[in-house]
Amino acid sequence: MSEKTILVTNDDSIVSPGIKALVEAVRPFGRVVVVAPDSPQSGKGHAITLEEPLRLRKVDVFDGIEAYQCSGTPVDCVKLAVDQVLKGKPDLCVSGINHGSNSSINVIYSGTMSAAMEASIEGITAIGFSYLDYSFQADFSACKHYASILAQKALNGDFEQGTLLNVNFPILPLDSIKGMKVCKQAKAKWIEEFDSRTDPRGRQYYWLTGEFVNGDTDEDTDEWALANGYVSIVPVKYDLTDYVRLSQLKNTIS
Amino acid sequence: MSEKTILVTNDDSIVSPGIKALVEAVRPFGRVVVVAPDSPQSGKGHAITLEEPLRLRKVDVFDGIEAYQCSGTPVDCVKLAVDQVLKGKPDLCVSGINHGSNSSINVIYSGTMSAAMEASIEGITAIGFSYLDYSFQADFSACKHYASILAQKALNGDFEQGTLLNVNFPILPLDSIKGMKVCKQAKAKWIEEFDSRTDPRGRQYYWLTGEFVNGDTDEDTDEWALANGYVSIVPVKYDLTDYVRLSQLKNTIS
Repeated sequence: MSEKTILVTNDDSIVSPGIKALVEAVRPFGRVVVVAPDSPQSGKGHAITLEEPLRLRKVDVFDGIEAYQCSGTPVDCVKLAVDQVLKGKPDLCVSGINHGSNSSINVIYSGTMSAAMEASIEGITAIGFSYLDYSFQADFSACKHYASILAQKALNGDFEQGTLLNVNFPILPLDSIKGMKVCKQAKAKWIEEFDSRTDPRGRQYYWLTGEFVNGDTDEDTDEWALANGYVSIVPVKYDLTDYVRLSQLKNTIS
Repeated sequence: MSEKTILVTNDDSIVSPGIKALVEAVRPFGRVVVVAPDSPQSGKGHAITLEEPLRLRKVDVFDGIEAYQCSGTPVDCVKLAVDQVLKGKPDLCVSGINHGSNSSINVIYSGTMSAAMEASIEGITAIGFSYLDYSFQADFSACKHYASILAQKALNGDFEQGTLLNVNFPILPLDSIKGMKVCKQAKAKWIEEFDSRTDPRGRQYYWLTGEFVNGDTDEDTDEWALANGYVSIVPVKYDLTDYVRLSQLKNTIS
């Protein structure tokens, strides 16, 4: 069996503890190549860089693992990795481990998940991992355990090619986690407010802030799984067509 | 009947001809308020600004229409509009008219559509409009005709609240357009390549480039509709759960 190639990326930047944990989780399974942003890219969604050129720089931060920092977004990293670094498709793309949740509606804003989605668009099986603990001092050992299991399943061909998974970890030690749960994206959302301030020149500016509200009481959602001690796994797709409304609209628009 | 409020935004910036055409199309139908980026934000996807503060500046560019330019992304514009400008939800959010297609997979990368999606997440009916003609000298008269029809339908309550539509216009004069077609997102994608160059200091840099390839031969897609002289209308949703794979994965992961 030929050696598998695993592309690792993230959105918190190449020097974040989360990507280090992910590299450690997958390095036993093949040739690992890292292409990750040189600066934090949280909340960058599926952004790509069109107005500026991109830089790619080889760096040595993972103890012998081939790694590149990129000036662009997480999606740029995946595109550059496939086209310029690997010059072909890896067997698996893993993204994260994100410092903070990407469950429910957060999947839309997440650079971590957008990187994984970009790989999936390319037909590459991809998994985005996120840990509900925001701290850079967080303990990633339980995350690494499950990331390793899922990466192995992917490399063994247990998932259909191009499968895209949004995996979130609860803040619990390994022996308190009840297992993994395949679930749907909860209908939760952010109630936004802006913190309005005045700068030293007397001009107003705003910081985005907000409160996460889950009004979804279904028990088959990612929010339920996480609140009840499970690792949540949501299969994600990039066909955004709303097929239910499509049928309805055919009568309304003609 | 009380006056309707219509929020207008885009991703090409507040001074692009496309947003001017859209303002003209919807201004007969109520109170129009524009909150749009101060610089081009194409390809910004669902990015939000977390690392920098946001600026909002009142400007006079639409002949008596209340308008603000924002330093952030299209999604930031919608959030700021609802929370700080309107201090409530508009009856309709329209985004565009984008200079260039947002059909098929482009919906994922599109700032135009992400702004509309953000409104939809807030429960606001929202329509993103895009014109296949990239030129700033493009003739928007046919686009305005159909944008006006769809905005009126939305304001009349013909669509369920929170409906999100991705509307694309073919490059055709009004009398050559066959009508509107409700359709699904085509399975088309970009084959990416990077244009690799060397800067004056001898360091390599990359420009994203690529070719759009539609391998989807179905006749109920947006690409088919556009190629055959129709305005394409795809209803879009932000629940990214892949329900087909969800059932399959329940057997694979436990």
